[in-house]
Amino acid sequence: MIYIVGIGPGDKDYLTLKAIKIVENADLVVGSKRALELFNIDKDKKIILTKNLIDELKELIKNKDIKNKKIVILSTGDPCFSGLLKTLLKIGAKKEDIEVISGISSIQIAAAKLKISWEDYNIITLHGKSENKEKLLNLIKNHEKVIFLPNNLKEDAKFLIDNGINPNTKIWVLENLTYSNEKISLKSLKEIIKEDFSYLTVCIYRGEDD
Amino acid sequence: MIYIVGIGPGDKDYLTLKAIKIVENADLVVGSKRALELFNIDKDKKIILTKNLIDELKELIKNKDIKNKKIVILSTGDPCFSGLLKTLLKIGAKKEDIEVISGISSIQIAAAKLKISWEDYNIITLHGKSENKEKLLNLIKNHEKVIFLPNNLKEDAKFLIDNGINPNTKIWVLENLTYSNEKISLKSLKEIIKEDFSYLTVCIYRGEDD
Ligand SMILES: C[S@@+](CC[C@H](N)C(=O)[O-])C[C@H]1O[C@@H](n2cnc3c(N)ncnc32)[C@H](O)[C@@H]1O
Ligand SMILES: C[S@@+](CC[C@H](N)C(=O)[O-])C[C@H]1O[C@@H](n2cnc3c(N)ncnc32)[C@H](O)[C@@H]1O
Repeated sequence: MIYIVGIGPGDKDYLTLKAIKIVENADLVVGSKRALELFNIDKDKKIILTKNLIDELKELIKNKDIKNKKIVILSTGDPCFSGLLKTLLKIGAKKEDIEVISGISSIQIAAAKLKISWEDYNIITLHGKSENKEKLLNLIKNHEKVIFLPNNLKEDAKFLIDNGINPNTKIWVLENLTYSNEKISLKSLKEIIKEDFSYLTVCIYRGEDD
Repeated sequence: MIYIVGIGPGDKDYLTLKAIKIVENADLVVGSKRALELFNIDKDKKIILTKNLIDELKELIKNKDIKNKKIVILSTGDPCFSGLLKTLLKIGAKKEDIEVISGISSIQIAAAKLKISWEDYNIITLHGKSENKEKLLNLIKNHEKVIFLPNNLKEDAKFLIDNGINPNTKIWVLENLTYSNEKISLKSLKEIIKEDFSYLTVCIYRGEDD
């Protein structure tokens, strides 16, 4: 069985008891270095995923022992939000071989920080979804509330300005949530295009000219 | 300080370490009987919320000690999804007196069970939001994927049929998620209007004629 286990936004305290128990009982745990460090796992029971992740996961799901072994794949945030579940299904993992353990998504932490309710927001990811850039553009044009995962925030902001959004439009930028270098700031698009941001960033547009 | 702490879908194993720690260090913990039972809390440190919840919470936020005491309010799922955060802000709690601790939402467990990614879905709640009934109708008319919290599933299904949706349209009905009486079934609208469902139900329409 493959357990895709959500590890939350990064801080160990956001692990669920279930995630901890499943990792403890696993035969093999696979994940990024950062993810593996959240747990105490015997050296011979873990595999660090590299940049070559797709090939490594492909190898893993070909494992003939899949039915008898407990293989855990660690996924940041919630595996069901722009996460490893989709990747695994895409490379051919069978649904019946998979169990998914939900984790706290970066989207939820961002909402908690601003004390907003995410059922009032459109939620989109620009990660590898270029059509969503147009969607984001239209939402902001219509002053609709959006939480989004940027692809490259600087370029995304430039795209918005180039397509007619007021450069003074303000966006909440939430970087490295739950990490010691967490940073939350309200910035105009024209400020954003001049700066660099963490890879770990969630953005929120509140639908107003904040 | 008021800590609004998400307790997840119901099963203790979905608590985060953070939720457990904050409850352990609280001066007072307020929540439903079911929520309080997930923790070990001294008798004199807990208050059970009743049906009269709004008045009880109003009383609580008037507490003059709010700045010096650690008051925890337990919220099912994620407090930022159709949860107690909105209720508290509505009755006048000040944002600066509140900290929100995210929890696993029933929406996430539903997605994990069907092994779908929720960034591909529209997410709406019909709880006390009658305008969302129209929104749901339009989404299903257009065969768009939706995860929704029903208000009264039987009546909601009747509304859909009465407004032109094919009675054979199939909906996933996920009841009592993570509880021992969890039940997951795929049902047509015409079946749904003849049955009764748990108050704890998430529905998923996959955008196909399943
Ligand atoms: C491939 S997606 C995975 C999302 C993840 N499944 C989740 O639910 O948060 C990676 C993106 O998630 C966001 N992200 C993940 N962790 C974050 C954190 N701690 N702070 C801010 N953003 C984060 C960033 O936008 C990052 O580029
Ligand atoms: C007031 S809303 C609160 C939602 C909660 N904040 C969350 O994130 O799941 C209550 C609704 O959530 C859904 N719900 C909560 N827990 C559930 C569970 N264990 N199984 C199925 N649905 C659940 C049901 O639709 C229920 O009527």
